[in-house]
Amino acid sequence: MAVESNLVQKAQVLIPSLHESIVRPAQVIEVVRDEGAFQGWSVHPVDSFESLREKSLGKNDSFVLDFGDHQVGYLALKLRPTGSPADAPLRLKLIFGEMPCEIGEDFDDYDGWLSRSWLQDEIINIDVLPCEMKLPRRYAFRYVKIIVMETSVKFNVQFEDIYCTAVTSADWSKVKELPQGLPDDLREMDRIGMKTLADCMQTVFEDGPKRDRRLWIGDLRLQALANYETFRNFDLVKRCMYLFGGMTLDEGKVGACVFEKPEPHVDDTVLYDYSLFFIATLHDYYVESKDIDTLQELWPAAWRQAELALQRVGDNGIVADDPSWWCFVDWHPELNKQASAQAILIYCLKRGLALAEALSLEKEIGFIQEQIARLSDAAFRELFDAEQGFFVSGGQRQISWASQVWMVLAEVMDQQGNQQLMNRLFAVSPEIGPNTPYMVHHLIEALLVAGDQEKALEQMRAYWGEMVKDGADTFWEVYHPQDKKLSPYGSNLINSYCHAWSCTTSYFIRKYFV
Amino acid sequence: MAVESNLVQKAQVLIPSLHESIVRPAQVIEVVRDEGAFQGWSVHPVDSFESLREKSLGKNDSFVLDFGDHQVGYLALKLRPTGSPADAPLRLKLIFGEMPCEIGEDFDDYDGWLSRSWLQDEIINIDVLPCEMKLPRRYAFRYVKIIVMETSVKFNVQFEDIYCTAVTSADWSKVKELPQGLPDDLREMDRIGMKTLADCMQTVFEDGPKRDRRLWIGDLRLQALANYETFRNFDLVKRCMYLFGGMTLDEGKVGACVFEKPEPHVDDTVLYDYSLFFIATLHDYYVESKDIDTLQELWPAAWRQAELALQRVGDNGIVADDPSWWCFVDWHPELNKQASAQAILIYCLKRGLALAEALSLEKEIGFIQEQIARLSDAAFRELFDAEQGFFVSGGQRQISWASQVWMVLAEVMDQQGNQQLMNRLFAVSPEIGPNTPYMVHHLIEALLVAGDQEKALEQMRAYWGEMVKDGADTFWEVYHPQDKKLSPYGSNLINSYCHAWSCTTSYFIRKYFV
Repeated sequence: MAVESNLVQKAQVLIPSLHESIVRPAQVIEVVRDEGAFQGWSVHPVDSFESLREKSLGKNDSFVLDFGDHQVGYLALKLRPTGSPADAPLRLKLIFGEMPCEIGEDFDDYDGWLSRSWLQDEIINIDVLPCEMKLPRRYAFRYVKIIVMETSVKFNVQFEDIYCTAVTSADWSKVKELPQGLPDDLREMDRIGMKTLADCMQTVFEDGPKRDRRLWIGDLRLQALANYETFRNFDLVKRCMYLFGGMTLDEGKVGACVFEKPEPHVDDTVLYDYSLFFIATLHDYYVESKDIDTLQELWPAAWRQAELALQRVGDNGIVADDPSWWCFVDWHPELNKQASAQAILIYCLKRGLALAEALSLEKEIGFIQEQIARLSDAAFRELFDAEQGFFVSGGQRQISWASQVWMVLAEVMDQQGNQQLMNRLFAVSPEIGPNTPYMVHHLIEALLVAGDQEKALEQMRAYWGEMVKDGADTFWEVYHPQDKKLSPYGSNLINSYCHAWSCTTSYFIRKYFV
Repeated sequence: MAVESNLVQKAQVLIPSLHESIVRPAQVIEVVRDEGAFQGWSVHPVDSFESLREKSLGKNDSFVLDFGDHQVGYLALKLRPTGSPADAPLRLKLIFGEMPCEIGEDFDDYDGWLSRSWLQDEIINIDVLPCEMKLPRRYAFRYVKIIVMETSVKFNVQFEDIYCTAVTSADWSKVKELPQGLPDDLREMDRIGMKTLADCMQTVFEDGPKRDRRLWIGDLRLQALANYETFRNFDLVKRCMYLFGGMTLDEGKVGACVFEKPEPHVDDTVLYDYSLFFIATLHDYYVESKDIDTLQELWPAAWRQAELALQRVGDNGIVADDPSWWCFVDWHPELNKQASAQAILIYCLKRGLALAEALSLEKEIGFIQEQIARLSDAAFRELFDAEQGFFVSGGQRQISWASQVWMVLAEVMDQQGNQQLMNRLFAVSPEIGPNTPYMVHHLIEALLVAGDQEKALEQMRAYWGEMVKDGADTFWEVYHPQDKKLSPYGSNLINSYCHAWSCTTSYFIRKYFV
């Protein structure tokens, strides 16, 4: 593990101050079993918040608040005892949910493989009443269930006020109006995409404000793209780049994610594609910002990722496969990553080439050009199945959507070739399809690269448009229109329902569809 | 409710700063079912604290710490992740116990009538590791069980340090050495009594640092007596007197207890004997401190308690009985309080008389003298059953220990009469006996008033001495040598095991037995 303090220090001076806003509950609701509703739960209003504020609640009373939209922030409670003075601690349970399922289902029944500690609930004991308190942890939620677990025989409790101090580093005043005449569904997908991005924009670009609340490079790359079209917070991208570039793992590998606290530190997770995306993210940042100083400072880290990635290329010019979790691409248990990794390497080398050119690094320019040619030739020679017309991946020569999409994005063929491949992909529709908005983003980007703007729009509507119909306030980490409880973690309770990699509707709409 | 701000202000400037000391666990133990042990639980060492500090603990691991003695204070944890960086919140459950039963039994099975929120447990979620944290609530405990509820598949947790910052307003340097030659068991009862008092001495004299953590006048009176013989913190008594005197209920009644936070306020509980004890407590304070200014300022409140108490006296000169909870005396569901109340009224009027004399209030002196005579005559006439030789109480003419004890303390007879009554009490041993150290205190004091120092010592040994044998680190709220799970609240889990009214061994030993 290597830390370049001067780079990390540059990241730290860019910690943004957060914009705060006070949000009160819209209403009191109930969450009920409803097999016709998304994930089997529907929400019904039962009372106004104003009316709740006047009530006196005793042991085992409970209520569910709907804050009207997704919130990321801190919950404050103003409580007073009713009846006699509070002669015992007040004990409350609070359950926070981004989605109704989190309110309706019992967290104690959770048995996914990610830690149950991501599910947002608290039991708090309050010694002094009346009080105004702000819970110390940040939550991501639209719904809050509060259960009065204990008062005493002498007092009950009144919730005089409840509000959320919502936080974001996104500045909404920077967002340009969409042009008149843009269809409402696109406006809606843009609005929700930006809300998703804003709720993930904190002191770094978080992947999700409920889970994992940290900076992953795969998410960062897409967030940055959406950010350039919306909030244009260049400093936050720069901060994140310096964090990744300043703290690397063995041999200088850029880690897949970093933590901010208590001090910045890099996780020990390394993913082949994610390390390479450091180059792509730096490329996109430079193209948008023209910030040559940052490019110069971070180029060595970017170049190192290319060098390390090329070490994995065999004599046949192909990235070596591995049965372990070495490359992300998508949450799909059966997806073979080899062809995608080959394409991602080419994709990132092409962006590295542009950066080397900007820096006039002649030696590197020549080297990268050679590698791109070698890898692209090998991709055709070794991975393209001419009979089937698809790129294959791994020892089992798997044909997946991901492999084709990434080969299109790597532009190993000309636009006509790309278009034919994408048409064939939709016609044949291989079984191993996209499972996440992250992969669907790349599918749509591939359609745009292939020149099929119409199909790209159609696909965006078929995917994010369905999420909107299913009630998304912010876009989700995982979504499959045909399998709405899909979770890579063994329980849809723990899915993130405001997830950075799902925010790119705003990028597509503002960059390609206005 | 009436607040005299100038009096409350005088109380507030006397808020003491607390002495802090750092206490680390003595060892790691287990609590096991043992029908032969006190309350059915015994404690066995299993590991050293030093060894625990080096361990890495995962989901569902747990341990129990023994801090070696009763503590009142704040728990601090120093935690670090082992394995990978902490990629999910750490979720811990902490259970604090004054006694092994609180560790051995499940709080969720509790069904006493006092709020379960007094049972000291927390579930905490820690977002950032490594960390050093101090839990914000104060606990009273010797034992702490910590359960690691959640880590993640990538990290476990190491408890690098755990300590308690113990707090008290008692100054141990003020305590005089006991003389050589005093028996060890008395030394031990004195030590534990002082420890009990010290742990209850915070910013007021609390009744118990686990429960109710507030100032009750019944406890205060006994604490003050023990304090005069030990820590001699006059300001704390004065502060408490000003709180009671400065915040009264309807007609100027002194409440049974007051709360300090968020602002000082008086509870709505009124008890006949407790209001009267304002006079006795002021008397004892004046005798010890000779602080005539405080006496002068608080005399009106004291005098008002006498006036109000006399309103309850009927034409027959006897305090009216009531089936409701109007007078405390002892935790005993069948005890009739009338005779005790009559005696307590006389007892407190006698102390009021001494105060009136100190202030040279001639009119009041005459009035109180008349009342003492009238009430004492009536006590004999109406309540003394000459045939049985006991004072009776209530419509059922109940004969209890409490009634005899209080008549002795009120000194309605001469010493010979008192002695005969106490001898008869022990010989006949009526069924309605003392249930709390509070009542046993008065029994012993009555024996001393009756001149039977030997029996007083024997009784102290039979009661507090048994508590010592049963393992008391601090003396308990409730104790019955023949019924060791006795609780007035429906569960011995919620009993306070460091309780102010039980601290008077030090008072007796230092005042009468050295």
